[in-house]
Amino acid sequence: MKKNKDKGGTSLASVTSLNLRAKKLGIDTRNHLVAFISGECSICKSAGFRSEARIHIENGGEPIVATLYVTSASWLKPGEIGLSDSAWEKLKPKEGQSLVVTLAEALDSFASVRAKLHGKTLTEIELNAIIQDMSQGKYSDIQMSAFVAASADLNEKETTYLTKAMTASGRVLKWSRFPIVDKHCVGGLPGNRTTMILVPIIAAFGLTIPKTSSRAITSPAGTADTMEVFAPVALTLEQMRAVVDREGGCIILGGAVDLSPVDDELVQIERALDLDSHSQLIASVLSKKMAAGSTHVLIDIPVGPTAKIRSKDEADILQTLFMSVGKEVGLALEVVQTDGTQPIGRGIGPTLEARDVLSVLKCEKGAPQDLRDRALFLAGKLLELCGEVPPEQGFVEAQRILEDGRALKKFQAICRAQGGYREPVLGAFKHEIFAPEGGFVLSIDNRRLARIAKLAGAPDSPKAGVDLHVSLKALVHRGEPLFTIYAESPGELSYALHYLHSHHDIILIG
Amino acid sequence: MKKNKDKGGTSLASVTSLNLRAKKLGIDTRNHLVAFISGECSICKSAGFRSEARIHIENGGEPIVATLYVTSASWLKPGEIGLSDSAWEKLKPKEGQSLVVTLAEALDSFASVRAKLHGKTLTEIELNAIIQDMSQGKYSDIQMSAFVAASADLNEKETTYLTKAMTASGRVLKWSRFPIVDKHCVGGLPGNRTTMILVPIIAAFGLTIPKTSSRAITSPAGTADTMEVFAPVALTLEQMRAVVDREGGCIILGGAVDLSPVDDELVQIERALDLDSHSQLIASVLSKKMAAGSTHVLIDIPVGPTAKIRSKDEADILQTLFMSVGKEVGLALEVVQTDGTQPIGRGIGPTLEARDVLSVLKCEKGAPQDLRDRALFLAGKLLELCGEVPPEQGFVEAQRILEDGRALKKFQAICRAQGGYREPVLGAFKHEIFAPEGGFVLSIDNRRLARIAKLAGAPDSPKAGVDLHVSLKALVHRGEPLFTIYAESPGELSYALHYLHSHHDIILIG
Repeated sequence: MKKNKDKGGTSLASVTSLNLRAKKLGIDTRNHLVAFISGECSICKSAGFRSEARIHIENGGEPIVATLYVTSASWLKPGEIGLSDSAWEKLKPKEGQSLVVTLAEALDSFASVRAKLHGKTLTEIELNAIIQDMSQGKYSDIQMSAFVAASADLNEKETTYLTKAMTASGRVLKWSRFPIVDKHCVGGLPGNRTTMILVPIIAAFGLTIPKTSSRAITSPAGTADTMEVFAPVALTLEQMRAVVDREGGCIILGGAVDLSPVDDELVQIERALDLDSHSQLIASVLSKKMAAGSTHVLIDIPVGPTAKIRSKDEADILQTLFMSVGKEVGLALEVVQTDGTQPIGRGIGPTLEARDVLSVLKCEKGAPQDLRDRALFLAGKLLELCGEVPPEQGFVEAQRILEDGRALKKFQAICRAQGGYREPVLGAFKHEIFAPEGGFVLSIDNRRLARIAKLAGAPDSPKAGVDLHVSLKALVHRGEPLFTIYAESPGELSYALHYLHSHHDIILIG
Repeated sequence: MKKNKDKGGTSLASVTSLNLRAKKLGIDTRNHLVAFISGECSICKSAGFRSEARIHIENGGEPIVATLYVTSASWLKPGEIGLSDSAWEKLKPKEGQSLVVTLAEALDSFASVRAKLHGKTLTEIELNAIIQDMSQGKYSDIQMSAFVAASADLNEKETTYLTKAMTASGRVLKWSRFPIVDKHCVGGLPGNRTTMILVPIIAAFGLTIPKTSSRAITSPAGTADTMEVFAPVALTLEQMRAVVDREGGCIILGGAVDLSPVDDELVQIERALDLDSHSQLIASVLSKKMAAGSTHVLIDIPVGPTAKIRSKDEADILQTLFMSVGKEVGLALEVVQTDGTQPIGRGIGPTLEARDVLSVLKCEKGAPQDLRDRALFLAGKLLELCGEVPPEQGFVEAQRILEDGRALKKFQAICRAQGGYREPVLGAFKHEIFAPEGGFVLSIDNRRLARIAKLAGAPDSPKAGVDLHVSLKALVHRGEPLFTIYAESPGELSYALHYLHSHHDIILIG
């Protein structure tokens, strides 16, 4: 509402804006900003405040837009406004402080979303306005959802505009070094923790790689969860800069550093809808890289029937779009397609995956070969992309850095710079599962193994998880261990065993 | 989750389903089903219950699917599940009763929504599955929103399937009479209360017209709000049947009788997105009519620059789609396009609009001619559509029923059958606005007049509103009254006056 003042009377604001006292409710609504008022607040009623209204709340600083609900509960009095944890965190009021509350203005940029739903192509100006409104929290969930739906099939130009707008929605890092390199894997393969091997190789080579990663959402471990086994990951931007200045690389949690923040909100909607189109995927990945100041980016697309990208054809289409948008936004970008048919390494769960990583970095004899090969392949490609080694020489160069111990040393140095290096320790409670008969491993149900790891406590209990002792097509003898379940408490172990007992076909032998 | 039981151990349900004690929270989340658990409920955590998870709650009867939030507040203890008013109303548990809670199953029908977003045409089977899942509350808000977005441009066949699926989502009334007639006006014109004149005319003629209406959402009065000035409107289905059996017609609140309930939820999303495409509009209107058992339906499309349908071209497209879908679903349907350039009648607000209606029914000398003419035109068209009078004879027949007092008598009889007839009484507090100078009325800002009526308390305070004394292009003299604001309390009157004082250009004279 504009604060219309004229000689004729009191300002409009005095009618439609209210002063309400802030109250922290302790309700976790994730990143959605939610506010509550009492149903007995008659002044709120007169101002048109009703459940599901979008309201604008000011506290001197950056205002927020929240969704309102009305409650008859006794924990909220008339004249108070209760805030969800997320809203409280953004506004940072004092308990009982007076907040200025008005109905939110109409959302002009949503007209473009409506037009898009009726077949119109979006312009750069329109996409900028949409993303800017989103970054100011003006879009409700259902408006975000309609935008995600509307942008399921953006063309190359629209994807480029979206990428640029999302980049501009948060901080954009500037570095005095060149090049700034990064890699991204599209669609996680279980255990695919190449980042923690690749980053120290690249940094040890002398290039700069400020890597941000995320925690698990539905899987038993994300890269950030696994890295956290070794060192703190929730760094501020200043701390991140200090680590990168000192060591040339880092592996930190992306959420805290405000890079392409609109992406985080869109991803949450896309996950809930289980909908991520190529254009949204590309805008999401490249806006994060652009915001991090990257100049050279390697994209890894694992292809396999149970991977995110299921066929070579689909990977080719995605690769082409990645290349053209990358070029439009000014990135040196290469795409590689890799084998996505089975999980990488042996451990499932933060600590078990960390153990696999460390085993590769230490060049131990029994280190998972698939994890090592893949990390070296990607690191090599990245060196080649930057023009630092001749074509086809990247793998050998990366291997040299791994084998002479520089990668391990750099990794431990990065960990220390992030706050301290620690070695993985497995959970105290474990249970081994043995082969009921001899034969070849016909199938491994990765989805159910992941479920067991989660029931055992992963990733919240980082030492929990599943350690796989056999691989597909291997010959096993009766009574040989197939896998081990780890947990941090006997209760969690028994949850996992309960599930296991009703699902006997997790590893099929025949 | 399937309750997998086998000899190997406890059922899966014992791991993933919890028994939690019901607690009423008194939070109004409108029709969204929301549940809360304590952040200290460790058993909930182990079961994967986190904020924004979709959970399935059972209570012996019909289960519900709700969105979960985690709270650290002291008003919820571990082992309790707090319910929003809407969820409580659906489950009807006893306070403290044990409810069985599990994570909700994946939503298979949403795959079709995703496919539609990528350009696929939806089949009848797919639309049925989507609407059935919605009717069981399985769609979250953001999934509903994505469906609304995906169905912004349905073709004629899809619209027909959607209409049928929505009809089947609730009760479908059967009548022993024939024909069952109805009319619907697309996009409200302020003051357009023809329903309360048309229904008694049709019923007095001898036809059956079981009319359901809605309350205002953003306007100062809906038909149900205005009818409620005369008689109770929140009738059960049984009460509705009794009224129609006795009097041949009724005018009741639609929400309570479970006709096309999915429509109510979709409409709420469409309103929040300010998005209603032709196909959604048609499915919404026709599913309600089909569910009410209608056989003959008249659709009124007001056309005007500030009406919902802005041009003759748009009205023609809508009319064609209405006719074809109507035919497909087996309705005798006619569409008329009417003047939508200015509001109808003089009053804005439930009681003032009721006064206009009664004035027409009583054939008073000063009754608003525009309201009378429009009601007679539509009633006449409906009589012609049913073949009860020859073409072009409907208006005269309707006029006869109005003028000889049968319509008034029937209206009062319907009111008595609905629970008692009462006459409109205006608000005790009023303020007249006079012309500051003489001249012709150049413009009337209906949007702002509606805003004043709402600030004065309409529709919650039914006696509040604005009474307009002049019409467009009329000649007024200096000091003549332009309009009067009514309110039920001095406080509400002053709200409205505050707003008025900062907006001088509501009626322009020159």
